[in-house]
Amino acid sequence: MKEDDVITLIRDMAPTVSNDVKLSIGDDGSVVEVDQKMELVTVLDAITVGTHYPPGTASDSIGHKIFAVNLSDMAAMGAQPKWAHLSLSLPKAEKSWLEGFVSGASALASKHGLTIIGGDTIKGPEMISLSIQGLVKKDRYVTRANANDGDFIYVTGHLGSAAFGLHLLKSGKNKPEQFIQDFNFPKPRVNEGIFLSDFASSMIDVSDGFKSDLLKMTKASNLGFRVNIDELPIRREMIDCIGLDESISMALSGGDDYELCFTISERTMDKFEKEWQERFETKLSKVGRIIKSSNEYKYNDQDYMVKTNNFEHF
Amino acid sequence: MKEDDVITLIRDMAPTVSNDVKLSIGDDGSVVEVDQKMELVTVLDAITVGTHYPPGTASDSIGHKIFAVNLSDMAAMGAQPKWAHLSLSLPKAEKSWLEGFVSGASALASKHGLTIIGGDTIKGPEMISLSIQGLVKKDRYVTRANANDGDFIYVTGHLGSAAFGLHLLKSGKNKPEQFIQDFNFPKPRVNEGIFLSDFASSMIDVSDGFKSDLLKMTKASNLGFRVNIDELPIRREMIDCIGLDESISMALSGGDDYELCFTISERTMDKFEKEWQERFETKLSKVGRIIKSSNEYKYNDQDYMVKTNNFEHF
Repeated sequence: MKEDDVITLIRDMAPTVSNDVKLSIGDDGSVVEVDQKMELVTVLDAITVGTHYPPGTASDSIGHKIFAVNLSDMAAMGAQPKWAHLSLSLPKAEKSWLEGFVSGASALASKHGLTIIGGDTIKGPEMISLSIQGLVKKDRYVTRANANDGDFIYVTGHLGSAAFGLHLLKSGKNKPEQFIQDFNFPKPRVNEGIFLSDFASSMIDVSDGFKSDLLKMTKASNLGFRVNIDELPIRREMIDCIGLDESISMALSGGDDYELCFTISERTMDKFEKEWQERFETKLSKVGRIIKSSNEYKYNDQDYMVKTNNFEHF
Repeated sequence: MKEDDVITLIRDMAPTVSNDVKLSIGDDGSVVEVDQKMELVTVLDAITVGTHYPPGTASDSIGHKIFAVNLSDMAAMGAQPKWAHLSLSLPKAEKSWLEGFVSGASALASKHGLTIIGGDTIKGPEMISLSIQGLVKKDRYVTRANANDGDFIYVTGHLGSAAFGLHLLKSGKNKPEQFIQDFNFPKPRVNEGIFLSDFASSMIDVSDGFKSDLLKMTKASNLGFRVNIDELPIRREMIDCIGLDESISMALSGGDDYELCFTISERTMDKFEKEWQERFETKLSKVGRIIKSSNEYKYNDQDYMVKTNNFEHF
């Protein structure tokens, strides 16, 4: 079974019946009502060696990554992260490994005002789960489902850099260092996500690859997209290393970017771009537009055939 | 490193600084303030094959168990479980396995009004994490830390039955069936826990073994205990099978009971016992008393030497 089928099976067998649940299985996080003014957003993601990071990865990178992955989901909901619960399964508990892990984790957690308040540790295969809870103003969470025809599609940062970093690591290389860094220490766009809760009509974080995640968002919105390949944010050094075609392929299909992909209406676009420039140094790229039915990739206004293998769990 | 040292290391490197955190790392769950009237309790526990259930365990039992383990922690906080997030890591996603898992999980979840609203699935070693969120009236959560000198110590259900069930399974036996059932389908004491939030001065769930968990509770309260071995709730059939000495040893040190151990003041004891009998059919045993400094086990008023190996993670 594919991951989506597993999720569908779980969702169908355990239907949501509770009135206080605003958003359930199928988005980047869940939303429940806990207060007159605020809603509670929860995300839970696990990572394991071999699937999410290569064997031998330094433990500060692993500690950083499990928090980055979950903070990125929280960002994609437009919520302020607050509290974290960590579940750590390890075959052996080595002090130096744990110190590195906690140091990587707590640096990123404290940067975003996140407090680790619970969890458990067990002896078992190497597997790290984290759950983050955050708050968002009532009815202001951003889902994948509300893009509108004509909205512009934006993406933060660069695409494909983490995938190229992983490719370098697998080839036994450690340069260019930027890409290794992009893979080992992704930057979740937490403040950008909170800011976007005032502007974005729909949002998703790019974790499985831009193409795959954009498709999830537009499918959830029952709409299509037209993306300009020439607008995709790709690091120049990547093109220098592996050429344009391979770079485009990595930008579209490489996983682990942890950037935000979102839609903005034409009406609010100018105000949005102006405020973004005032607040953030994070690169912002307008890469396409929501359209009614078809999914189109263009390069210099010509149709572009995308050939890719996406990362898929299970 | 031992589990406690790992937890201490994480706690020390990631101190809790947030004002809204009422209870952090080190109890059965965490508590944060989300509302004027209610507090949010969160628990997160993972289980894996070989450590928490034997290879070949039916998936409905695994689905039941991951919910039971977490619901038991929630019960020990005195909170009403509300929402669940599931993280499922499996080497291979088989439909029949998943259907069994979800059927076991959702039966127990719906029995306790719990809704599965999020999570993720990954390809990796067999490992199941669950986070449950619940609500408790402001300042009414029950911790391990507030037992008072002279309080009576109670425990629900039977002790050692799950450990005996596991022992039977390991020996290739499937009878007496009650004990296999106690191990595979433990009953979290959710309603009892909520009721106890009005009475108990301290509470813990018995998951690592009565002796070990009672010690955690009394240590957290900076007090000691006197336990009457002859009052421990042990199933008669277990004594018939393996004799009294072995039964006592399993009752004290066997894991996976998922019963509640708690303390009640002498002042409220009669009212508590009366209301319990009116509400619950669950067996209730008064097994000892909180005392100032020493930890004592008695049998027929004589000192009893406890020789045990406790289940310890890592």
